[in-house]
Amino acid sequence: MSKIKKITFEVKKYEFHKPFHVTGSISNYATNIEVVLETEDGAKGYGEASPSFRVNGEKVEALYALESSINELLVGMEVRNYRQIFDLMDKYFASPSIKAAVQYATLDAFSEEINVPVYQILGGARTEIEIDKTVSIDTVENMVRDAVEIYNAGHRVIKIKVGEDLKKDIEAVEEIAKLTSGAKYIVDANMGYTPKEAIEFAKVLYSKGIDLGLLEQPVKATDFEGLKFVRYNCPFPVGADESAKTKYDIMRLIKMEAVDFINIKLMKSGISDALAIVEMVKSAHLQLMIGCMGESSVGINQSVNFALGTGAFVYHDLDSALLLKEDTFRGKYISEPPVFKGI
Amino acid sequence: MSKIKKITFEVKKYEFHKPFHVTGSISNYATNIEVVLETEDGAKGYGEASPSFRVNGEKVEALYALESSINELLVGMEVRNYRQIFDLMDKYFASPSIKAAVQYATLDAFSEEINVPVYQILGGARTEIEIDKTVSIDTVENMVRDAVEIYNAGHRVIKIKVGEDLKKDIEAVEEIAKLTSGAKYIVDANMGYTPKEAIEFAKVLYSKGIDLGLLEQPVKATDFEGLKFVRYNCPFPVGADESAKTKYDIMRLIKMEAVDFINIKLMKSGISDALAIVEMVKSAHLQLMIGCMGESSVGINQSVNFALGTGAFVYHDLDSALLLKEDTFRGKYISEPPVFKGI
Repeated sequence: MSKIKKITFEVKKYEFHKPFHVTGSISNYATNIEVVLETEDGAKGYGEASPSFRVNGEKVEALYALESSINELLVGMEVRNYRQIFDLMDKYFASPSIKAAVQYATLDAFSEEINVPVYQILGGARTEIEIDKTVSIDTVENMVRDAVEIYNAGHRVIKIKVGEDLKKDIEAVEEIAKLTSGAKYIVDANMGYTPKEAIEFAKVLYSKGIDLGLLEQPVKATDFEGLKFVRYNCPFPVGADESAKTKYDIMRLIKMEAVDFINIKLMKSGISDALAIVEMVKSAHLQLMIGCMGESSVGINQSVNFALGTGAFVYHDLDSALLLKEDTFRGKYISEPPVFKGI
Repeated sequence: MSKIKKITFEVKKYEFHKPFHVTGSISNYATNIEVVLETEDGAKGYGEASPSFRVNGEKVEALYALESSINELLVGMEVRNYRQIFDLMDKYFASPSIKAAVQYATLDAFSEEINVPVYQILGGARTEIEIDKTVSIDTVENMVRDAVEIYNAGHRVIKIKVGEDLKKDIEAVEEIAKLTSGAKYIVDANMGYTPKEAIEFAKVLYSKGIDLGLLEQPVKATDFEGLKFVRYNCPFPVGADESAKTKYDIMRLIKMEAVDFINIKLMKSGISDALAIVEMVKSAHLQLMIGCMGESSVGINQSVNFALGTGAFVYHDLDSALLLKEDTFRGKYISEPPVFKGI
């Protein structure tokens, strides 16, 4: 038995190898909070919050300021009773990336204490996963170059960011498809289209014989009706990302029959809601992918262990640590892109 | 790491202290199958199937005959990868009590191997639960006597079986309520009413100032529309039991807004679907109870650990081991009715 002694936050800044451009946002750095949870027995659990103001409304400085209230809440609690800690952290629903980091650090400390990897505590459904890599928004020429580089590195799932220019987007996907035969494409508009634009995008590509594995978040986060409209008029699976944060969002999306796919990110949902979403989505016969924000290897570790443990995901969009400059790899998994393996 | 070496089934027969009478069924014995799962390292995991022909269409002899096919499927698998084993056992959906027993025996063997109780693997949400005890169908006089005995033994949640005679049922609940002040009542019709009878039952009791904590399964298992009709016309929470077996049943009940409560029984759902149902029901803002068939302490152990680990249940109807004659108590929990505690 091992109680929480203290929880420490530290701000960490990581530079992207190249600026990361998605609809309405260009990032040069990921600024994260590393969470270290120490138990009275000396076990240390690690978590990482990678906040997104665009998606979650979170700011690093506001999250950092939560350190003392979270210590007051959790110090003295037993890490083995991890659902009790999950329930308390659910109250931090407005700061979901910190909720995720503290919940994961709890599991990680429990894992260290009992010497069982987190992915086995969660069920050990898989021993390895295949990850995609992302082509961010750029000129068509540069996007094609990036996609071919990703393809030549062995990736067979390529994520393509679109959503700022419908005509150019179609051209980029078309050109990429010509040079990456056999790859699957996750096309992510990050809310950049209207419903009718999204349908136009999909139908033109379909008419050219191009198959998309998934069209992700074509419309605004709060436009559930728009998502449903796209889903019912699109030949490809349609997924929710920015619309799909809490388990309550997902229940509403399921009831509305608004999507084919859900993109779970621990940074949006925490571990607690993510576990619920896995079960709900499978029970509703929809499909799942797992994504990330700007996590380093410490944060991606969380999603890798979650994905291996639950085994629930068709696509694993967990490339952020590969896009960041990091002195030392610190994940408790083997990183051999396009494959990540459990240890 | 520890692989499954063999799985052994044994039929066990337990006599009820007194015949157990619910709508359309009187039982003198519970005939169960004990499942022992041995690993190569010598760890043993225990599970128990308590089949119900009435609810699940299961017969003991048919379940017993599955021993060799389940050995062929699972021998050599690693108990740490328990979700892989859960997924394989999900194929035995027509034999849910065996599915439950084998899935739990897997968790129990994993628990023995890592020396962490199952309820902590599942999250350790609670350290103790309060259980109810059941008044089965009898004369009003005998039902009142049984209820008072249960009340005097310290139980404050009393389950009352009704459903064979509307007028007598109302009288029995009314008389019990007079003599058990402060108790909560779960009234279980086991599918015995029509929707209109169920509403009549509830409204008459309501008009007499009697409060029911739950009206369970008033109508036929397959009558989801009837359940919804009762729910919308009943002042008390309405729950599904026989209607609520798989996670797919529950998704349909949620989408239909047909109930307020779900009664999870591991014997109907196995561990895998039960975990999904917990998450779905919480996400839909409904409530949960956990129930049992005719499990001995070996089988009730499964539900106690599940309930402690997930912490999801308002009511714990886990009294079957208390109703059976058993030479030795074999649960990995402390039985101090009305309280059960984790070890």
